[in-house]
Amino acid sequence: MTLDYQETRLDLERFGRIGMVEAIWGEHKTTDQIFSILKSLEQQDAMALVTRVSPEKASIIKENLPKVKYHIQSRCLTLGKYVSINKSLGQVIIISGGTSDLSVATEAELSLKMHGIQTELVLDVGVAGLHRLMDQLEKLKKAKVLIACAGMEGCLPTVVSGLVPQPVIGIPISVGYGISTGGRAALEGMLASCAPGLVVVNIDNGYGAAMAALRILNC
Amino acid sequence: MTLDYQETRLDLERFGRIGMVEAIWGEHKTTDQIFSILKSLEQQDAMALVTRVSPEKASIIKENLPKVKYHIQSRCLTLGKYVSINKSLGQVIIISGGTSDLSVATEAELSLKMHGIQTELVLDVGVAGLHRLMDQLEKLKKAKVLIACAGMEGCLPTVVSGLVPQPVIGIPISVGYGISTGGRAALEGMLASCAPGLVVVNIDNGYGAAMAALRILNC
Amino acid sequence: MTLDYQETRLDLERFGRIGMVEAIWGEHKTTDQIFSILKSLEQQDAMALVTRVSPEKASIIKENLPKVKYHIQSRCLTLGKYVSINKSLGQVIIISGGTSDLSVATEAELSLKMHGIQTELVLDVGVAGLHRLMDQLEKLKKAKVLIACAGMEGCLPTVVSGLVPQPVIGIPISVGYGISTGGRAALEGMLASCAPGLVVVNIDNGYGAAMAALRILNC
Amino acid sequence: MTLDYQETRLDLERFGRIGMVEAIWGEHKTTDQIFSILKSLEQQDAMALVTRVSPEKASIIKENLPKVKYHIQSRCLTLGKYVSINKSLGQVIIISGGTSDLSVATEAELSLKMHGIQTELVLDVGVAGLHRLMDQLEKLKKAKVLIACAGMEGCLPTVVSGLVPQPVIGIPISVGYGISTGGRAALEGMLASCAPGLVVVNIDNGYGAAMAALRILNC
Amino acid sequence: MTLDYQETRLDLERFGRIGMVEAIWGEHKTTDQIFSILKSLEQQDAMALVTRVSPEKASIIKENLPKVKYHIQSRCLTLGKYVSINKSLGQVIIISGGTSDLSVATEAELSLKMHGIQTELVLDVGVAGLHRLMDQLEKLKKAKVLIACAGMEGCLPTVVSGLVPQPVIGIPISVGYGISTGGRAALEGMLASCAPGLVVVNIDNGYGAAMAALRILNC
Amino acid sequence: MTLDYQETRLDLERFGRIGMVEAIWGEHKTTDQIFSILKSLEQQDAMALVTRVSPEKASIIKENLPKVKYHIQSRCLTLGKYVSINKSLGQVIIISGGTSDLSVATEAELSLKMHGIQTELVLDVGVAGLHRLMDQLEKLKKAKVLIACAGMEGCLPTVVSGLVPQPVIGIPISVGYGISTGGRAALEGMLASCAPGLVVVNIDNGYGAAMAALRILNC
Amino acid sequence: MTLDYQETRLDLERFGRIGMVEAIWGEHKTTDQIFSILKSLEQQDAMALVTRVSPEKASIIKENLPKVKYHIQSRCLTLGKYVSINKSLGQVIIISGGTSDLSVATEAELSLKMHGIQTELVLDVGVAGLHRLMDQLEKLKKAKVLIACAGMEGCLPTVVSGLVPQPVIGIPISVGYGISTGGRAALEGMLASCAPGLVVVNIDNGYGAAMAALRILNC
Amino acid sequence: MTLDYQETRLDLERFGRIGMVEAIWGEHKTTDQIFSILKSLEQQDAMALVTRVSPEKASIIKENLPKVKYHIQSRCLTLGKYVSINKSLGQVIIISGGTSDLSVATEAELSLKMHGIQTELVLDVGVAGLHRLMDQLEKLKKAKVLIACAGMEGCLPTVVSGLVPQPVIGIPISVGYGISTGGRAALEGMLASCAPGLVVVNIDNGYGAAMAALRILNC
Repeated sequence: MTLDYQETRLDLERFGRIGMVEAIWGEHKTTDQIFSILKSLEQQDAMALVTRVSPEKASIIKENLPKVKYHIQSRCLTLGKYVSINKSLGQVIIISGGTSDLSVATEAELSLKMHGIQTELVLDVGVAGLHRLMDQLEKLKKAKVLIACAGMEGCLPTVVSGLVPQPVIGIPISVGYGISTGGRAALEGMLASCAPGLVVVNIDNGYGAAMAALRILNC
Repeated sequence: MTLDYQETRLDLERFGRIGMVEAIWGEHKTTDQIFSILKSLEQQDAMALVTRVSPEKASIIKENLPKVKYHIQSRCLTLGKYVSINKSLGQVIIISGGTSDLSVATEAELSLKMHGIQTELVLDVGVAGLHRLMDQLEKLKKAKVLIACAGMEGCLPTVVSGLVPQPVIGIPISVGYGISTGGRAALEGMLASCAPGLVVVNIDNGYGAAMAALRILNC
Repeated sequence: MTLDYQETRLDLERFGRIGMVEAIWGEHKTTDQIFSILKSLEQQDAMALVTRVSPEKASIIKENLPKVKYHIQSRCLTLGKYVSINKSLGQVIIISGGTSDLSVATEAELSLKMHGIQTELVLDVGVAGLHRLMDQLEKLKKAKVLIACAGMEGCLPTVVSGLVPQPVIGIPISVGYGISTGGRAALEGMLASCAPGLVVVNIDNGYGAAMAALRILNC
Repeated sequence: MTLDYQETRLDLERFGRIGMVEAIWGEHKTTDQIFSILKSLEQQDAMALVTRVSPEKASIIKENLPKVKYHIQSRCLTLGKYVSINKSLGQVIIISGGTSDLSVATEAELSLKMHGIQTELVLDVGVAGLHRLMDQLEKLKKAKVLIACAGMEGCLPTVVSGLVPQPVIGIPISVGYGISTGGRAALEGMLASCAPGLVVVNIDNGYGAAMAALRILNC
Repeated sequence: MTLDYQETRLDLERFGRIGMVEAIWGEHKTTDQIFSILKSLEQQDAMALVTRVSPEKASIIKENLPKVKYHIQSRCLTLGKYVSINKSLGQVIIISGGTSDLSVATEAELSLKMHGIQTELVLDVGVAGLHRLMDQLEKLKKAKVLIACAGMEGCLPTVVSGLVPQPVIGIPISVGYGISTGGRAALEGMLASCAPGLVVVNIDNGYGAAMAALRILNC
Repeated sequence: MTLDYQETRLDLERFGRIGMVEAIWGEHKTTDQIFSILKSLEQQDAMALVTRVSPEKASIIKENLPKVKYHIQSRCLTLGKYVSINKSLGQVIIISGGTSDLSVATEAELSLKMHGIQTELVLDVGVAGLHRLMDQLEKLKKAKVLIACAGMEGCLPTVVSGLVPQPVIGIPISVGYGISTGGRAALEGMLASCAPGLVVVNIDNGYGAAMAALRILNC
Repeated sequence: MTLDYQETRLDLERFGRIGMVEAIWGEHKTTDQIFSILKSLEQQDAMALVTRVSPEKASIIKENLPKVKYHIQSRCLTLGKYVSINKSLGQVIIISGGTSDLSVATEAELSLKMHGIQTELVLDVGVAGLHRLMDQLEKLKKAKVLIACAGMEGCLPTVVSGLVPQPVIGIPISVGYGISTGGRAALEGMLASCAPGLVVVNIDNGYGAAMAALRILNC
Repeated sequence: MTLDYQETRLDLERFGRIGMVEAIWGEHKTTDQIFSILKSLEQQDAMALVTRVSPEKASIIKENLPKVKYHIQSRCLTLGKYVSINKSLGQVIIISGGTSDLSVATEAELSLKMHGIQTELVLDVGVAGLHRLMDQLEKLKKAKVLIACAGMEGCLPTVVSGLVPQPVIGIPISVGYGISTGGRAALEGMLASCAPGLVVVNIDNGYGAAMAALRILNC
């Protein structure tokens, strides 16, 4: 397993500059490329997160690099010891409309845990059965930041933003069919939201939402 | 004022066939064309509804055809005596998220009134301030059919469909900006809705939603 | 087979609230997730419908939960005893332009049957050979509600809505190629329809159209 | 009134090469540009058709070039004597769903007349009231070529192509709103048509459909 | 192998009505469905064309229905004896920009042959090497009708329509990448063509273009 | 000046619930509607912000309601006394790529000022001349939250997010032409950003970005 | 006439850095903003080009700043003395399919002239009448760089790139209607071109194409 | 292995006409078709480049035509001896934002090498960690032409074009997810770029960018 052409130019100063560990987008990289990058990071004793890694790729990499850990629900690989949990920064609650959003919600959760942030998942609070959300409202109000995942029509972040004063980060989920295939309807709905101050990241971008929450907690 | 080429081929049997008065789409017709059609209908003593007529066009037509009536909020012209209200068919409640939806909501209201249907408007119950909708819930449950107008992210029909068992017809409204310009985000959101049994009509189609409600009440 | 993190928050009050059995969207859920949800519902003696389940997933679930039934044409799993047929509510006729629409048409049919509604399928009445539709017109006029499936250009619901006074629910079908890949042309055509009062659900949403028909029959 | 830079490079050999008179697209040209082109053609005693000319532009040009003729319904300018009608080539019938399509339908009609082709307009035969089309069927079967204009969902050419064996050229019309604004739904519907052998031109392209009919009649 | 629910409602009168054999869209039908339709047609001694059939499906069907013939390049199944070639109707030449268009070009060729029309294929005359097209110009001028296939930017039909006076039917091909994935750029380019009288069918619709040519030859 | 139908259902509890003053979307409301809402708010001594008000509308409203203030650059109306500046919450810096973004940048600035937040504008730091941004880097690092406006290709928020650890809220601006008309390229670029933790609001949504910043400062 | 907030941060080092004069995008700037920028540049004795300025804006600015020059065909304002023509760098030929492209073609021409580049315009060589282009081929082969403007289906740059070995820069023009409204079909066609080595700029971006040619001539 | 119908009409004069070797688009061709074309070229002793060839196809072809060479990273097949490197033409530097762009970057590199052009790859200089790009700036300034690959939001070519005076050719890469799936956001961002003179090719078009660079070096 070798990477052609050259040593990868890793952004190892990122942690010092913006407080985030090296993160690698796994989906469009070959197993070889991911292995080479992790190998090089391991030699420098660096932490790393690789998102969107299939179980097949992960298992080959783990065989060659036993120190990495694979997280099957979020489809992420991690390398190195996490930052220890710092409760004084406050908690991030990740809510979601349905079970189908689980892999994105847990990608966000893992990304925060690695950086020492306390998290909680609250699933199955979709707006088509509003009472389930209402039952959790008091808990939600105790979080510092909320991350709200929703596919289909993506209403959940809008309804939540109208109920609580905290920062709410919407993640559109690529769960849907017909007109909402690929999460586009959810994305457009969140951007068009009539609830003031809702912010949005790209479809399925659990890692991005987590880093946004981290920026907020650190500011 | 004359129409070139020929007498218009009006669908005068429509009332007998599907129970709806002649309706004319005013937006892409010239003042001349609308006048000629109404003139011909008046001579046959027929009822008619013309939607999407600007005040400027309306005022010229009214001068030449004093019997027509212009409804400024819904931008419709009507001709002829309405069908008398038949309370036994039940009531249609038209709800809307914001004041900006008023012209579409009133187009639906007028279209139903002409056909003898009892209606009520419930405005400003947008989901970003959920308590306003919750306060009206008991009233909504008394309607036979609900028409729900929403622009921006278009969540209102989804939330309502999760709360009540009646037929809910969603009308996406062309109120929005950026990604939701022209009502597309609202339309896609309603179609992608996770609430079961919500049906949708074209953007701003107050008349269409009303005719759907009429079909339901008559079935 | 176990579901991580927590018990799923099922919306078991849905039947009481809006008269519909628990329905689960199967496509973006893993076999594990579907199994756990059905297991939990079975223990509570609840009815359930799971849509968009591949034969492969279905067969694993059936092995572990012998009480579920798989419907190969509509690709649905059902659990529990159906509501008994209530003929007094009237019949829903489901029409379709071509054989390719069969899986969606039968998803609608099954969803209605589970709720005790009488149905009939009328296939192959596409508008490119109009006489086939005309031959069925008297039968169609006897239904309480019509559900019309069409792919390609999606004209069938428009033509039918111009011929009968009943509620017509259009389902765009993802049958098509080139410009109409994924059912978009059919969807847009139905929304843009010049036939008054036609309502539309998302592409391939047989279940949604059925629930809309149920709301109408119950209102 | 002068054109900067150079004499326009007109395609005067077009009539000899492909049997069509010089046609100029007027919409994105200034009054000055149209005038200069027509002036130059007049000096060469050539025929010409200018499409999409507003009444304001037309009136300025006519003042300076009295020989041109303005056709208000089709918004075209013509120059020169038409080719004499050649009945032996057969007739083109132009049908349309609604009065709003009139300017495109008459652009097609004028373009054919200039080239000596016999035409007839049959308006208001939209598919939402099917009997109006059926009443004209015998007449339609006598044409050599049919041009079918339709806005909104654009079903008319599909239904007609299923009923007659002649060439049918569909023109999508930019009449519509919401999802069908600009004629896109009609265009996509015609392309996706399940009727075999329907051909399509660009939205509102009356001139193009006419030239296609001319190619057919001449072949 | 049996078809559920009912006998398929075939449009067997189509040949009498519009002069075309029964054609079945194979892509979205199961092997079972195609088999049942062909079986039923065979029993009625009817001709049939099934388009878009994969070699896998075709081989199962042929095993059960030995009379059908599979055409591997065009991916079509045919049943029954072709109409005998009628040279007096004239010839259709099918041209194409590149080898990648071959399956669509041969679908058009086969569809015409079945109906007794004389055809010729002229491949590899793409506009990026214009001399190849120019070399074939005299031959092209001898056809009654031209069908021009092009993927990528789809310029070929435009250039040809400017050079010859015959009817030209453009077929956009789903060959492309990036912005032109799926043939959309080619389709839009053909519709937007500045060459007068070019008509277009849906992407990859070889059968449709052939039926349009047949309508022209028969008119 | 009166509003038909009913008293508007204002969400006056919003300040208590989520800490934001009543904000009214002015673009799709008539002058009459805006006046009625402000009149009603004034009587209740409430604060209000109306966005997207043309100078023409504003001047009529001010004549009838002298207490409102019009802000010409941001095109906003305000009513009532602002919350006093609370420096301890920290400062929000609003940066922008070009002068054309000024009205959106100042809408964000005004929205924050009304809520007592200290702000600074840093304009003309577009990435095509990178040194201008680099010169301001030390200043930017002192803000609590950054709001970054960019039209055209929208790169500014991406570059900034890679340089500083604070929360960065991107606002795509509807400045552009051709492919980027309406701000869509900027929006998609920000969502697709490779910089971790950048969050986005709808095109031109200065108010929304400000409320997101407010949520962050208050959390 | 004053600009609020601050002195504009002009990129005056651009000429030294990348060899281009300050260029200002005029379309989304107010008359005030353009005036202030030009005033400031004049005081520093700098050259400047402002694109997309309406005659109305231009005339107000010229009144207050008599040294600027307005170019009506290209809708540009220029300030300062042009770089003197340097013939040794070679000539750029700008070709275009139709008269409607003139304002963009001349924007490119002016932008090059200001930088001392020799240019020639060759208009009306659209591919629907190929002989007009062929007649100019020898001249085109003498240019160093070609800029090819085309609206509608945008074939011209593709055909030219197949005929000559020089760099060809395609400019899609927003001339079109229906499917090609706004120049999108031309843009996609140029990007999808089968001619190797054709490069593209944004729709109507005459200035951008000129700067690309300048980069090439200077390299 | 044989190609049906005819000898392929290869454009063998291309090298003489525009200085480029025969290039074949491999993606939509069958293994058979590619083999036949290469076989025919080999017999004529011609050079050739086949892009987008999967390892599976390549291995079958190599078995039958041992003279071809497969380049696994760029997924290209080459035939024949390369043009010898001509250093006097200058060097092309290919830069890229991330490792995922490698296959496109190396397609460009190979295409240039075949034509005798000196190249260098500079990878991992994405704008989210700007210092990596800045470190390479002096090297970049020594190239004659730059090719800049970027997926996601595609900012790299914009930032580079603002820093150097040479021709910069942007290649959008189909690396992305959600809104940027397929490279569309990167493409639109490059076209919309505020950096003057950036030119763009289709998504993933490494070969096209190389041929554009070749045209520039030869002009």
